[in-house]
Amino acid sequence: MTPTRVLTGITTSGTPHLGNYVGAIRPAIAASRAPGVESFYFLADYHALIKVQQPERVQRSTLEIAAAWLACGLDPDTVHFYRQSDVPETTELTWLLACVAGKGILNRAHAYKAAGDRNRELGEDEDAGVTAGLFMYPVLMAADILLLNAHKVPVGRDQVQHIEMARDFAQRFNHLYGEHFTLPEAAIEEQVATLPGLDGRKMSKSYDNAIPLFAPRGELKKLIAGIVTDSRAPGEAKDTEGSALFQLYQAFAAADETAAMRQAYADGIGWGEAKQRLFERIDAEVAPLREKYDALMAKPAEIEAVLRAGAARLRARYAIPALARLREAVGLRDLTHVPVAAAKAAAKKDAALPAFKQYREADGKFCFKLVEGERVLLQSRGFASPKDAGQRVAALKRGGFAGPDEDVALGEGVAGDEVARALEALRAAEDARA
Amino acid sequence: MTPTRVLTGITTSGTPHLGNYVGAIRPAIAASRAPGVESFYFLADYHALIKVQQPERVQRSTLEIAAAWLACGLDPDTVHFYRQSDVPETTELTWLLACVAGKGILNRAHAYKAAGDRNRELGEDEDAGVTAGLFMYPVLMAADILLLNAHKVPVGRDQVQHIEMARDFAQRFNHLYGEHFTLPEAAIEEQVATLPGLDGRKMSKSYDNAIPLFAPRGELKKLIAGIVTDSRAPGEAKDTEGSALFQLYQAFAAADETAAMRQAYADGIGWGEAKQRLFERIDAEVAPLREKYDALMAKPAEIEAVLRAGAARLRARYAIPALARLREAVGLRDLTHVPVAAAKAAAKKDAALPAFKQYREADGKFCFKLVEGERVLLQSRGFASPKDAGQRVAALKRGGFAGPDEDVALGEGVAGDEVARALEALRAAEDARA
Repeated sequence: MTPTRVLTGITTSGTPHLGNYVGAIRPAIAASRAPGVESFYFLADYHALIKVQQPERVQRSTLEIAAAWLACGLDPDTVHFYRQSDVPETTELTWLLACVAGKGILNRAHAYKAAGDRNRELGEDEDAGVTAGLFMYPVLMAADILLLNAHKVPVGRDQVQHIEMARDFAQRFNHLYGEHFTLPEAAIEEQVATLPGLDGRKMSKSYDNAIPLFAPRGELKKLIAGIVTDSRAPGEAKDTEGSALFQLYQAFAAADETAAMRQAYADGIGWGEAKQRLFERIDAEVAPLREKYDALMAKPAEIEAVLRAGAARLRARYAIPALARLREAVGLRDLTHVPVAAAKAAAKKDAALPAFKQYREADGKFCFKLVEGERVLLQSRGFASPKDAGQRVAALKRGGFAGPDEDVALGEGVAGDEVARALEALRAAEDARA
Repeated sequence: MTPTRVLTGITTSGTPHLGNYVGAIRPAIAASRAPGVESFYFLADYHALIKVQQPERVQRSTLEIAAAWLACGLDPDTVHFYRQSDVPETTELTWLLACVAGKGILNRAHAYKAAGDRNRELGEDEDAGVTAGLFMYPVLMAADILLLNAHKVPVGRDQVQHIEMARDFAQRFNHLYGEHFTLPEAAIEEQVATLPGLDGRKMSKSYDNAIPLFAPRGELKKLIAGIVTDSRAPGEAKDTEGSALFQLYQAFAAADETAAMRQAYADGIGWGEAKQRLFERIDAEVAPLREKYDALMAKPAEIEAVLRAGAARLRARYAIPALARLREAVGLRDLTHVPVAAAKAAAKKDAALPAFKQYREADGKFCFKLVEGERVLLQSRGFASPKDAGQRVAALKRGGFAGPDEDVALGEGVAGDEVARALEALRAAEDARA
């Protein structure tokens, strides 16, 4: 059986913090060891360009995040670990998908709509400061997924819409060009572990309340000492509910350790003592990872080599063959073997369709008829200009046939519903072509 | 002097007809032989995917159009002739540009707005049937142009807006990431020759009134016999004004031939006779081209080889180095420090070139000199601000050296034309890098 392909994108726009570790890195690496799964992890640096326009930051963040995942145990020999921009087939597929993706769907993307809402609140033009990159984000993401025909994409609730869009684009492509794409599924992470930050709000780079995952020991201790608490004195019982300190502890401790800490809270442990225990618990888990991280960061060339090898393997095994198939599917083909027969058959099929013929009468007037093979279904009177005749043809094509009138007569022995059917066939053929 | 780079895109969504030949192919090929110009012609098949979703048609049209341009005399040894999809760097650059392109600008693109207007007329949702590809068309087109830092893009009036958008995206990119792009200019073709079709309206595939450029002789004759005329009998004088036949004749005939035909109209030439003359005149020009075309179409592998060689040369000389620089610019970088040996080699190569050195004197003023190796070619006085000095350097780089003045003196024993040559070499090196 084919193993389930699971794809995880990692944004490269910051320095990894404890919240990233508990919420994303640690569970994803655990999942990467599950049996029957082929795992793909990529550093989404093309995505990062939407938000980050400082080149040094993109580069540095890519390095730090790659080093963090490797230090935390991601094994590039057993999973695919690569940098998105080392797989330029991604952008080519983005274009192929753009040509089938409905713009109307992109209008409804949450991230884009949120930007529009903010602009409207500020009294700005809806699209002020919005780049085409932000708007096209879901198409790029679909390309990441569909390039590998990934089965599952672990995402938080807020990202489910993007997976649905990827499915939609895949379906449209399959409908037009044959079954090339597997429809991906969102593996929704209902309980993404979130950590409180220094100020008690969710730990996040944008709140500036984050504890860097690989802060040196001394800095880690100092940061933990600065976590907000209430003002209860040592000896007073303390609430675990709503305690950032307790939640942080719980995220790193085993069940028995957590139970012991809960008891200590009830017994009135002092905040200084609790912070010391938290520091020791976190450091016990992080110290060996930090050591690996520092060693990796000292050899960036090795990280670069790991990423390149990952991309080279992925391209050879998946991306390059996939693009070759998809290019063939859409018609970007070697010209050596143009199927002449097929092209002729297509032309012949078109000839069998009903068609409007426009022409000029001897009296200089412009006429048209609707014919099916040799049969004349409709015959117009003469119009003064070709434009008038053309407009009437367009109206018939678009709006159908409401019966003969002063401009248009039925052909001999032709019934109105024959005309209606012919116009419908014509429309269907044009839609298929459009 | 660097030759002017002129880029022409050729859409690949149909079979070339006489109107394409007179309006586009014939003048473009004549222009390709102009001196001082480096010409680029590409088959825009990524663009074709926006409109054409029949793979065989994309393929067949690419073949026919490539064969037509080659048959009509485009020389792939003296111009760049390539297929867009053989240069996948185009789609990668499309993404980089998307991340700086304002979505608001794309909202105003004519082609997109026209689709929205049609939908509104029909009472449909504005974006019904509009793909992301149609919406992003101007970004792809900007990538075509900016990938090569093309100076001029010959376009009809209706395409000027797209060139303006390309300039806008280039400016935004340059502003964020440094001067990487030349701002392209539209070379507006005010009088694009248009031909009437069989029914007297403009010859166009969509009116179904076109005469294929390489229709076999017999078919050409038959089609010409079907051109609309008025009903005047032989012997009656005829109007050249509004006569499709006459306009077609004029597009192929020399001035004296046209004058003779005008006289024949006045003298009452019969329509049958006039059509025979038109057929002969067109066939005289087209027959040798048709022969080449048929020979080319019989050897599609040769066309494929020509296109691939064109793309390979273009990628090696322009596209691949350009993307390497642009990736570096936005931060998609090697995570290793630049290898010291390579940096030294590059520095050494640059050291052989003339260079401007800017520095600050002991008195706090800002100076520059132009040096070549150890030799000082130009020496400036001290400027009050680094900006003043920089502007003068920029003016010298751009405008050349008009002789010493109060701001700038020649180095000892240096002649003015040495300075001119050095500035030229510097400009050439920067263009090659740009």
